[in-house]
Amino acid sequence: MIHTKLCDLLGIQFPIIQGGMGWIADGQLAGSVSKAGGLGIIACASAEKEDIRKEIHIARSITNKPMGMNIIAKNPNALDMTNFRAQIIAIPVCPSPILAKKMQDLGADAVVVEGCEAGGHVGEMTTMSLVPQTVDLVSIPVIAAGGIADGRTAAAAFILGAEGIQLGTYFTVCKESNAHENYKETIIKSNGWDTVVTGRLLGHPIRSINNDLIKRCIELERNGQFQMVEEIAHGSPRKAVKEGNLLEGSFMSGQSCGLITKKNSASEIIRQILSSAENYLSKYPEHIKSTC
Amino acid sequence: MIHTKLCDLLGIQFPIIQGGMGWIADGQLAGSVSKAGGLGIIACASAEKEDIRKEIHIARSITNKPMGMNIIAKNPNALDMTNFRAQIIAIPVCPSPILAKKMQDLGADAVVVEGCEAGGHVGEMTTMSLVPQTVDLVSIPVIAAGGIADGRTAAAAFILGAEGIQLGTYFTVCKESNAHENYKETIIKSNGWDTVVTGRLLGHPIRSINNDLIKRCIELERNGQFQMVEEIAHGSPRKAVKEGNLLEGSFMSGQSCGLITKKNSASEIIRQILSSAENYLSKYPEHIKSTC
Repeated sequence: MIHTKLCDLLGIQFPIIQGGMGWIADGQLAGSVSKAGGLGIIACASAEKEDIRKEIHIARSITNKPMGMNIIAKNPNALDMTNFRAQIIAIPVCPSPILAKKMQDLGADAVVVEGCEAGGHVGEMTTMSLVPQTVDLVSIPVIAAGGIADGRTAAAAFILGAEGIQLGTYFTVCKESNAHENYKETIIKSNGWDTVVTGRLLGHPIRSINNDLIKRCIELERNGQFQMVEEIAHGSPRKAVKEGNLLEGSFMSGQSCGLITKKNSASEIIRQILSSAENYLSKYPEHIKSTC
Repeated sequence: MIHTKLCDLLGIQFPIIQGGMGWIADGQLAGSVSKAGGLGIIACASAEKEDIRKEIHIARSITNKPMGMNIIAKNPNALDMTNFRAQIIAIPVCPSPILAKKMQDLGADAVVVEGCEAGGHVGEMTTMSLVPQTVDLVSIPVIAAGGIADGRTAAAAFILGAEGIQLGTYFTVCKESNAHENYKETIIKSNGWDTVVTGRLLGHPIRSINNDLIKRCIELERNGQFQMVEEIAHGSPRKAVKEGNLLEGSFMSGQSCGLITKKNSASEIIRQILSSAENYLSKYPEHIKSTC
């Protein structure tokens, strides 16, 4: 199976990282992904220290393998949270090559670059442009995120220079994920063209699957009623993940939802994607037979 | 060299299509690309029939090989223009898989799917998501556009299932392009993160390299002054391509500008990209050595 320097850096078997999706990336999901040989991530978002400690215990009851925490720099508990663990490897998530370079200069061990096809908070560059242009600018391992959910997209990311891939949307629907069944079903039945970005003019663009809430947000944005957008979107991620509220929930998802057709276990996801990617990388594609 | 069914369909040597960029894709560029073995395209935009006929003559003075015309469906001369040529192969440019499917059902021979990292008019899906999700939906050849300007990105597009690639930004800077030197230099010195999309709220989003004009457009959009955006942007593509006006011109470019470092000839561009892509596709990437 595919093995890169990132695996050695992190002490993991497979170069697959689980995204730190708010409300979704809990101890059970992180523990399951790490147990399966990838790197599970517990999302801290704006949670209190004690809640996070609880999730770490859940994850640790599943496996002793390495795992990570997604810490938002503006969380006032950010420094405290990093004290939970002795040996810290820092891997910032960046939306642009120039920011990735800055993170390397500040001492980052690796970097996740996330293309705007990803779900949730997005930047402006796409995975296809972001990965090679970051690889050309930094010397630390680059992990590709955004748009990856099968062997083809994983192989493309590796060809572009990535030493690892991060999956968010696919792990959201995985068997061990605690996301509401309605959330999983929504992702499975959606296609890439069903996701839209809201909040660009508010300065924090977010990609979600189109529904009643999103339509109202877009309408309000067009009319410049930014404050109202904040109000109706407040609490909407929890409504999606915990309640499965199809009308008022914000079902964040990447465009890769169009590649996802069933709920596999974390282990199945990791092994199927890597073994398929390896297949794509091992043989010359049949549809572009060389004439030489 | 890489050879696909698209080459046979079009009677061309290499599966590379030149984008039909307004003001840039003239007879000289199209003729040069076709002569080099790709498919040159003459942009018709809103031009008059006689102007287009002149460009076709220029192209035909360079080569007798196949070439194409980029016809905007809303151009009132669209039907007339298609009568310039006897045997017509129709290849619509689509921003989404569902539209590509509709085009196939209407009789299209192949389809270009253009990711939003492309320059000029853009949709919402990225190349990484667009290509595999279109390939899964249609049976006609899929040509990938957006973000492609070197061997890595071309190889990634082929891995994703494309049978051809379309380059716009790279051919803009090529030696045979009549774009103003300032335009070419602007692309060469820019990076992927220097491009921005304006006009999203106006319903026709366009990606260009950030400059004075673009900053003013963004400010006006934020204030809801859409009419003013139309006014200051009027004529800006011509100012960029013909005059090289760095302040008032709209320098449309894809995020792939970050991969472009010099002005090669059309033939050098085609041969270097395909031979590098072939290299990436022929051997297992060194940075992801398999352990099995």
